[in-house]
Amino acid sequence: MSNTRLGEARGEELPEKENSVTVRIIGHVRNEVPSGKVDDWGEIASEVVLDEEYKPSLEGIEQFSHIIVIFWMHQVDEYRPKVRPQGRTDIPEQGTFATRTPFRPNPIGISAVKLLSRKGPILKVIGLDCYDNTPVLDIKPYNAVDRGRVEIEIPDWMRKLMEERETDNPRYLY
Amino acid sequence: MSNTRLGEARGEELPEKENSVTVRIIGHVRNEVPSGKVDDWGEIASEVVLDEEYKPSLEGIEQFSHIIVIFWMHQVDEYRPKVRPQGRTDIPEQGTFATRTPFRPNPIGISAVKLLSRKGPILKVIGLDCYDNTPVLDIKPYNAVDRGRVEIEIPDWMRKLMEERETDNPRYLY
Repeated sequence: MSNTRLGEARGEELPEKENSVTVRIIGHVRNEVPSGKVDDWGEIASEVVLDEEYKPSLEGIEQFSHIIVIFWMHQVDEYRPKVRPQGRTDIPEQGTFATRTPFRPNPIGISAVKLLSRKGPILKVIGLDCYDNTPVLDIKPYNAVDRGRVEIEIPDWMRKLMEERETDNPRYLY
Repeated sequence: MSNTRLGEARGEELPEKENSVTVRIIGHVRNEVPSGKVDDWGEIASEVVLDEEYKPSLEGIEQFSHIIVIFWMHQVDEYRPKVRPQGRTDIPEQGTFATRTPFRPNPIGISAVKLLSRKGPILKVIGLDCYDNTPVLDIKPYNAVDRGRVEIEIPDWMRKLMEERETDNPRYLY
């Protein structure tokens, strides 16, 4: 809990507790998916609508074909220490940090998506796995052109899931 | 500002303002870099020390060769709407979201790093571009094995910077 403001309001000084940070919401996702299960986000079009004050900070982003959107999965309010990936009984239970489950201590999502266009503070993107009205916390350019240089290893269970999911949606690819 | 707690402390009900979220600090980075400029983070060894309560959520993560660390750049307290990438005068000014500058509305950093080992709630990693004591907000597996499928474009200025930086440090590669 962030107690600084609470302390101020009480007129007393609380010891600084470093167990949380306050993160500004800089904008919201707008699309036609209010909630529920989506089989393939790859074709979902969304607008990332930043608050007007952040418009100058988007200048030049249209030179990137892909961007990383960092968002807050506001519909999730549960933390599960372990999960079965995608709820599948044929995959062993994993620690939450070993998966992309939304049931995390902090429901922060990061997705790399294709940027179609920018108009002022509004980014049109495709393939963003966010519900309508999802708060946005940051935008970063996606620059993984040289990633082939790095050899990485993943568990068999994730390889299986990825092979089954026939999509070129780059959100899985960061 | 998150006003819910402030309102409670005053004994009045404030309208819910959705302009911030409170994010738990789940652990901290430990290394030998207290601050300052670092030319190459690629060889810097760090420990990501999660709070004991999150130990179960790390189970299975050691099956990944690389992980994504999401952190809070706590030494940065300034937002600059536009920047020159890496302070270089030979590169045109860009909007902050078109760069990886730390001077963002929210100083959230994300880095993909090599995971050397795990011991309980402690992850040994290499190449993490964080100062000692940096708060950690989330850990995700890095699964970009198939990323070669996606063609991406980046601006010339970033290509130039990346070509100049001769490193295989994967933190640039998500």
